[in-house]
Amino acid sequence: MSIHPTAIVSPKANIADDVVIGPYSIIHENVVLASGTEVQSYCELGVSNGMSGGELLKIGKGSLIRSHSVFYEGSVFGDGLVTGHRVTVREKTFAGKNLQIGTLSDIQGHCEIGDYVRFHSNVHIGQRSQIGNFVWIFPYVVLTNDPHPPSETLIGVKVQDFAVIATMTVVLPGAIISEGCLVGAHSSVKGETEAGYVYAGSPAKRIFPASQLMLSDGSGAAYPWTRHFKRGYPEEAIERWGRGHDSIS
Amino acid sequence: MSIHPTAIVSPKANIADDVVIGPYSIIHENVVLASGTEVQSYCELGVSNGMSGGELLKIGKGSLIRSHSVFYEGSVFGDGLVTGHRVTVREKTFAGKNLQIGTLSDIQGHCEIGDYVRFHSNVHIGQRSQIGNFVWIFPYVVLTNDPHPPSETLIGVKVQDFAVIATMTVVLPGAIISEGCLVGAHSSVKGETEAGYVYAGSPAKRIFPASQLMLSDGSGAAYPWTRHFKRGYPEEAIERWGRGHDSIS
Amino acid sequence: MSIHPTAIVSPKANIADDVVIGPYSIIHENVVLASGTEVQSYCELGVSNGMSGGELLKIGKGSLIRSHSVFYEGSVFGDGLVTGHRVTVREKTFAGKNLQIGTLSDIQGHCEIGDYVRFHSNVHIGQRSQIGNFVWIFPYVVLTNDPHPPSETLIGVKVQDFAVIATMTVVLPGAIISEGCLVGAHSSVKGETEAGYVYAGSPAKRIFPASQLMLSDGSGAAYPWTRHFKRGYPEEAIERWGRGHDSIS
Repeated sequence: MSIHPTAIVSPKANIADDVVIGPYSIIHENVVLASGTEVQSYCELGVSNGMSGGELLKIGKGSLIRSHSVFYEGSVFGDGLVTGHRVTVREKTFAGKNLQIGTLSDIQGHCEIGDYVRFHSNVHIGQRSQIGNFVWIFPYVVLTNDPHPPSETLIGVKVQDFAVIATMTVVLPGAIISEGCLVGAHSSVKGETEAGYVYAGSPAKRIFPASQLMLSDGSGAAYPWTRHFKRGYPEEAIERWGRGHDSIS
Repeated sequence: MSIHPTAIVSPKANIADDVVIGPYSIIHENVVLASGTEVQSYCELGVSNGMSGGELLKIGKGSLIRSHSVFYEGSVFGDGLVTGHRVTVREKTFAGKNLQIGTLSDIQGHCEIGDYVRFHSNVHIGQRSQIGNFVWIFPYVVLTNDPHPPSETLIGVKVQDFAVIATMTVVLPGAIISEGCLVGAHSSVKGETEAGYVYAGSPAKRIFPASQLMLSDGSGAAYPWTRHFKRGYPEEAIERWGRGHDSIS
Repeated sequence: MSIHPTAIVSPKANIADDVVIGPYSIIHENVVLASGTEVQSYCELGVSNGMSGGELLKIGKGSLIRSHSVFYEGSVFGDGLVTGHRVTVREKTFAGKNLQIGTLSDIQGHCEIGDYVRFHSNVHIGQRSQIGNFVWIFPYVVLTNDPHPPSETLIGVKVQDFAVIATMTVVLPGAIISEGCLVGAHSSVKGETEAGYVYAGSPAKRIFPASQLMLSDGSGAAYPWTRHFKRGYPEEAIERWGRGHDSIS
């Protein structure tokens, strides 16, 4: 265990022997950090509020939490979590393995996230969002939840496996981004999309099958993206894609 | 007074006896923190610059400032201010009681804000904005001020009582969002809107009276939202709505 | 040299005698801070990652880095850099003199930036962006780089001298914002624009020459903005505009 002398770590926290904690970080009591995890500087993990209920914050093995990030208690992450800087994650966020959360992203809690999901910088994941596996969400995308703000009739967004949402898109309350869809930049999506299609515009319309988009280097179809993009995924993930391909092509 | 030993607090700051200040926070000299206020970790209050003029930063009673927030000197907040994390508030921001400012929001200063206003996460309030009472502004909304950027001919936005601005909307310089209006997500609003109407699109158009929108649970009209949404408001606020209702229904 | 006692500064860092470093900031070894520079609180400079290659972070003379900012090693800035709060700048960012980077802005690295560029709050500069001199980019603008996300076929955006991009605009991969163009708020720009024109909408269309826009105070044409806006520029910059004017009017 390598804890910087300026870090403030509760003796009640459950921290594996080889965890690294950077300068000026704070780890509260209800935190579990698994083996191989690194927490950089100015992070605060295990923040409590009225809704977090004193439950544990669990971070899986081999995770990396970059500086200035804030995690509440009461959330659970699989192995291999990687964050950018200044990430905020509220209570009751349940995520699978190898989630990546970009700088400035704000996960509002009370949501479910599958395996190998990538949030780029500055995404906003509203409460009650349900996100599948191998999803990509790009900068300044907002997943909303309130059809008549402000109200108590919240209805979260669903984003299914292999879907891609491009930058500055708003996903409206209750929308379902189906498997393998691509939502173009600066769109507003409502309702349920058809699997494997491109949607774009505000309001977003169905354009054509994503498989018709070709990579600019002439190497073939751009979607499903799993055909050509493998950077950062372990063998185990790529093996799973074999099955995924079948269902979306 | 409970000041964490790592906090750096000017002896000239005026801090009530029961204020709580978290680890690694910095309180400069021109700061007044009223009774019952809590400042979490990594906050810096009372930052000075060329425009703040050495005036006081005053935070009202019973306020909560969450971690990593930055407030300049020369701003005044009523009682019951509540912020999310990483809020930035510049000089000459004058706000009434019970303002809520969501995580990552950026208030550029030189603006006026009424009572019981709610800014959700990541809103950008440009200089010279004037915001009434009981206003709601949702994530990634930007209130602008420069019709011909960059210029010195700034003209702020006005948002009147009970208005609601949904996510990812740009309010153009000099626009007036009138009482009880709802601006839909991903809109751009110019000019003056008609009170109580829904506006949507880019450029935003008048759609229909907000009172025609029905809650999805079948319980009736969604607007004025004060009819069904009372969470987080004290009795005093709800009593004021009686009068507000009259003027916008 | 005035280094706050709580700052953590590597003895290998190369710091000029008159540099000021605020409370709780961290300066790593591969950092060069030139004379007259101030680093405020909670900053971390010289962060390393797999791509930064152990190269120096160089900050030019008379710079001001505001609180909570993060800079990676392997980037170079000319004299007079000024940042807002919570700025994140990744490796291999090469910028000229007097760059201003607003609060919350996220510069993803691997990009080139000219002299006297102004990024307002919360801009996102994607990798491979190339930005000229005297450019203005306003809040929540995103410069993208991946035509078929996620892919390895990135193509950055070019923004030429004196161009202005208004708030909440997405610049699509490979787009070229030509000299003296104005892109209106909430637009999506694709392809190459014609120099000196206004573009607006999603997708953005050519509207009319920017020189036809008049300032609201009746003092004449709003563009080229160098005609009337000089705040914050030194004599040396204004002299260069003489030449710039010729080429864009």
